[in-house]
Amino acid sequence: MEDSLTAYPPSISHDQLSSLIFNIKDWQITHGMQLKYGPDVESVSSTPIGVTVFPTTFPRALFEQAQALQPVYNRLYAAISEDEKWLYKVLTGLIDDGRFAAVLWGIHQQVKEEGYVQDITLGIFRSDYMVHVTPNPDPLAHHPQMELRQIELNTFSVAGGAHSNKTAQMHQFMLNNGSYTFLHSPQLSNNKIPKNETIDSLAAGLRSAHTAYGQSRYVKSSTPGILFVVQPRNVNICDERPLEYVLWEHDIPAYRAIFGAQLLEHTTLSPSRELLYQPSSLSEGVEIAVVYMRAGYDSEEYSLGGIEARLRLERSRAIKCPSILSHLATFKKVQQELAVPGVLEKFLSSEEAAIVSRTFAPMFPLDKESRAGRIGRQLACDPATASSYVLKPSLEGGGHNIYRRDIPGLLSNTPEAQWHTYILMELVNPLIQKNILLTPRGIYDKVAAIEDRSDFDAENEAEEQSSLDRLSTKEGGPTVSELGIFGVCMWKKPGPGWDWIMLNVEAGWSFKTKPDYIDEISVVKGFGCFDSPLLIDT
Amino acid sequence: MEDSLTAYPPSISHDQLSSLIFNIKDWQITHGMQLKYGPDVESVSSTPIGVTVFPTTFPRALFEQAQALQPVYNRLYAAISEDEKWLYKVLTGLIDDGRFAAVLWGIHQQVKEEGYVQDITLGIFRSDYMVHVTPNPDPLAHHPQMELRQIELNTFSVAGGAHSNKTAQMHQFMLNNGSYTFLHSPQLSNNKIPKNETIDSLAAGLRSAHTAYGQSRYVKSSTPGILFVVQPRNVNICDERPLEYVLWEHDIPAYRAIFGAQLLEHTTLSPSRELLYQPSSLSEGVEIAVVYMRAGYDSEEYSLGGIEARLRLERSRAIKCPSILSHLATFKKVQQELAVPGVLEKFLSSEEAAIVSRTFAPMFPLDKESRAGRIGRQLACDPATASSYVLKPSLEGGGHNIYRRDIPGLLSNTPEAQWHTYILMELVNPLIQKNILLTPRGIYDKVAAIEDRSDFDAENEAEEQSSLDRLSTKEGGPTVSELGIFGVCMWKKPGPGWDWIMLNVEAGWSFKTKPDYIDEISVVKGFGCFDSPLLIDT
Repeated sequence: MEDSLTAYPPSISHDQLSSLIFNIKDWQITHGMQLKYGPDVESVSSTPIGVTVFPTTFPRALFEQAQALQPVYNRLYAAISEDEKWLYKVLTGLIDDGRFAAVLWGIHQQVKEEGYVQDITLGIFRSDYMVHVTPNPDPLAHHPQMELRQIELNTFSVAGGAHSNKTAQMHQFMLNNGSYTFLHSPQLSNNKIPKNETIDSLAAGLRSAHTAYGQSRYVKSSTPGILFVVQPRNVNICDERPLEYVLWEHDIPAYRAIFGAQLLEHTTLSPSRELLYQPSSLSEGVEIAVVYMRAGYDSEEYSLGGIEARLRLERSRAIKCPSILSHLATFKKVQQELAVPGVLEKFLSSEEAAIVSRTFAPMFPLDKESRAGRIGRQLACDPATASSYVLKPSLEGGGHNIYRRDIPGLLSNTPEAQWHTYILMELVNPLIQKNILLTPRGIYDKVAAIEDRSDFDAENEAEEQSSLDRLSTKEGGPTVSELGIFGVCMWKKPGPGWDWIMLNVEAGWSFKTKPDYIDEISVVKGFGCFDSPLLIDT
Repeated sequence: MEDSLTAYPPSISHDQLSSLIFNIKDWQITHGMQLKYGPDVESVSSTPIGVTVFPTTFPRALFEQAQALQPVYNRLYAAISEDEKWLYKVLTGLIDDGRFAAVLWGIHQQVKEEGYVQDITLGIFRSDYMVHVTPNPDPLAHHPQMELRQIELNTFSVAGGAHSNKTAQMHQFMLNNGSYTFLHSPQLSNNKIPKNETIDSLAAGLRSAHTAYGQSRYVKSSTPGILFVVQPRNVNICDERPLEYVLWEHDIPAYRAIFGAQLLEHTTLSPSRELLYQPSSLSEGVEIAVVYMRAGYDSEEYSLGGIEARLRLERSRAIKCPSILSHLATFKKVQQELAVPGVLEKFLSSEEAAIVSRTFAPMFPLDKESRAGRIGRQLACDPATASSYVLKPSLEGGGHNIYRRDIPGLLSNTPEAQWHTYILMELVNPLIQKNILLTPRGIYDKVAAIEDRSDFDAENEAEEQSSLDRLSTKEGGPTVSELGIFGVCMWKKPGPGWDWIMLNVEAGWSFKTKPDYIDEISVVKGFGCFDSPLLIDT
């Protein structure tokens, strides 16, 4: 593998890079790999989303390990979502705090008091990993030791499925048409990008839930629909719309409603709590079989209107993708609790627990009561030890993390009573590779860095980019990649004498690559790119 | 039909129009119906190409008539392309003039002297029609009389195939998903958009030519390729790239070269005149089986480098789509000559000539020798009669036309010796319908006009658009549509004892709609939109 790191991808000429970029951007524009901009329906423009020029090599064994793990992770998080008492115990500190977790828990409590009318839940999950490199204990060994480390498991509003699907098609197209032939690269000629049919797989999950819901109960004249709950002024429609189009191809009506006031305006509950959606194009409302959440993941979306909208969805008979308890299962605090020895065995067999926990990084709470919490505090407050850790607020999916030597300062400015809302996680020592990244912030290669500016505005930046010519070499810069495995799981409230898991499949992958000096990947913000893994046998 | 004109499409509310536009733009972005902007490979953006909100009704009988005519038109223009003497006779005035026709003729002469080494030609043609309305002689008849009038036949660098294909898909998607249901429109519920698989049909034509070329003769190690000859800084890649992608799916290598210097740099002729193209991605050149011209239609492209590039292509053994004589057959002078009674019969049976000529508008030359020319001069110089005519320079495909009362003035400022380079054509009295047009220049409806500004710059205009809210009504404005029928024809030099036509098929349609007060449709410039015909039985 070390050989391949230095050799792949090799330097190329200005003309060759130019031609590759030209072909990539045209493919993206023609295939809808875009970010959409524009204040209203009338003036709309778009730019290609960030992608890598080359696929990045990835160890086949680790890729297959991640795929094989997914059904186990699916069932684990389904089980957690149905264990209200355990979830409450784990999240109780956050709930008492009165912030985001408390809002969601409050909605759950309110619906629970009235009684849930739907006992089926659909989960579309994504488990994210990086390759962690450890020194090989055998000094004569040629290769460093590599293992899969889970970064997080997302249960809510999981993105990147459609873009990843198309990125795989794009890199495969480039491989097929000889775009990389001049490189004479054994990696590119001997290895394969794994199939990625995430769009169809995720849509199949939504279709299964639609089937499970059955016929319309209230609006008997029409087929029930699937409602995509989305954010306003959404730049990432190209990651959502393809799923809708597949559903329509299968004669399943799919609609979009903006979370909050617009959703409240266009939906009602029938007396028997069927969710009815009124599209502007129809005179009669449509009964909703499945609510697919692509919004509502940020605490700032929960104004009074946001809370009321979420409450209406949860009260309804529609199958939620996912339920509010599944949403709460994505909080970091849950991830950290699962890493406590013995906890996984509550949900999994000991064999399963063993293979799952092998992907966990060392994690610590920061409470002052537990022994683990006291160790965590010690590691976090000392700049020397903090430099190997990341501090994660126990919020939704990602972001807002604090890294390395910033941790002690952050903690000293935070009241100690709040420390328990964070978890401390050992940083991955990532496998460094090379690539050229095409981002809305410009091209990243060996000499050109992507600017880490907080005032960056992709919409207005395109024109200001300096030209390709500024790059003195056309050689990849150091990069780090993150593999996501999608999972689709559908289950009903567990009860005696039935198989509560109705559907449990691995459902495709996403693969993102960023400059090695940037901590968090956000393709939409212009940090990092969609990529494809080129599976190699190490 | 008159009923339907007033009733279709009905007015809709602001919210309904908003929702339709939102769904249309997202579909376009996701499916690559875009215009591409940006100075170089690095900063690229795109905006959705102009489309109509609704499909426009079109008489089924006239649509089917146009489809049935296409194979006859294909063979007619193939025959013209092989009749060098007749072409020379028709174009001699233009050739003597020393302008664009002379440049092309000169290239032909040069290759002819050396001897052509390829006797097969591929034609991708498009015959454009409008519906001409004449008063019904029966005063009790409810409907006006409608007939098909040919506007022009394009033999060279014919565009719009991919966009039209996708426009049909888009409107069909909107019909299927109930986007128009609220209109309760009998037109939308009872009528059909005809199938349009232009991308596959045109690619199939290119594939047939690729098969006809046979194996590589010079670069024996690889499959021969197809070369798309394109313009620099091409905004319309979404109309070309899809054909390339289909070819690659069939394992046919497809490359792009920019007409002029870049083409000269990347191509050579082998001693036996095989055309060799050097892609920047390969170390070895590729032998080109088919040259597909999507550039070279404008006289300004024929700098010395342009002339040399075209000469190299024509000298080569590659099958040209189309040949230089087929290119010359697209000049307006040819169209006008074909309208002279008796001329069609030179190429077609009398039955065929009769059905073809039925689509011709009255046309006149402007020479002073012929009787028809003298009539033409009289009609053109009198403002009263000129108001029913359009004056067309006998150049390439379209554009540069002079309309109605502008004609006498133009002629009085043009030396009489130049008049013969124009043809005079009776204007169609078009069927006026209604629609809402979404163009890069803004929305066109009953009250909002699209500005006819020569300094319009679509790339920078998007941000300046006023909002949808300025529209006081949401009702379609008066529109005029143009139907194009694509044809694919492959033939070899006619000789005794063989069937010279190798392939002759109708290959899909394009349908464009513009505000009724704008004379020329140019979707790329923001005048007019792609549309779909909704076939009705009148």
